[in-house]
Amino acid sequence: MAELKGNDENVVFVGDKPVMNYVQAVVTQIGEGAEEVVLKARGRAISGAVDVAEVLRNRFLQDLSIESIETGTEKLEGESGTVNVSTISISLGRR
Amino acid sequence: MAELKGNDENVVFVGDKPVMNYVQAVVTQIGEGAEEVVLKARGRAISGAVDVAEVLRNRFLQDLSIESIETGTEKLEGESGTVNVSTISISLGRR
Repeated sequence: MAELKGNDENVVFVGDKPVMNYVQAVVTQIGEGAEEVVLKARGRAISGAVDVAEVLRNRFLQDLSIESIETGTEKLEGESGTVNVSTISISLGRR
Repeated sequence: MAELKGNDENVVFVGDKPVMNYVQAVVTQIGEGAEEVVLKARGRAISGAVDVAEVLRNRFLQDLSIESIETGTEKLEGESGTVNVSTISISLGRR
């Protein structure tokens, strides 16, 4: 899972780097004209993705709104077999 | 913040206990006739709240749907002054 650069159009995969790294990635994409940016995260990083969305809305892009939030479950192949991991997808757009 | 028992009507505050504790709390409330149960969590526990919602939907109450998900920011008074912490509220209802 590419950490910072979303490999899909305007997707930022949130991992365990500092929140500000991802905030910066979104600010850059919006600055380059993106109408919508989607934050995606799995497992423990889900809290970080919510932090990123909230910091963006409160401090950097006050006109940014959360368009939708979806959760899901992915099956990951681990050493000890298949494990379920929760996922979140937060769509951010400009009002 | 009461850990397991929601002090509001049909609210389950998710903390850092095992996911299954909270799954059980929701199953109990739904079993007692609750039409809707709201999972609330802050900070690192946000990932756990999403886990609870996903485990419920996938394994325990397949007719349970996520009605809405809202995020927010709370200001907490810490030793070193005010800190912002992200919050999530996941409303679960029966289809």
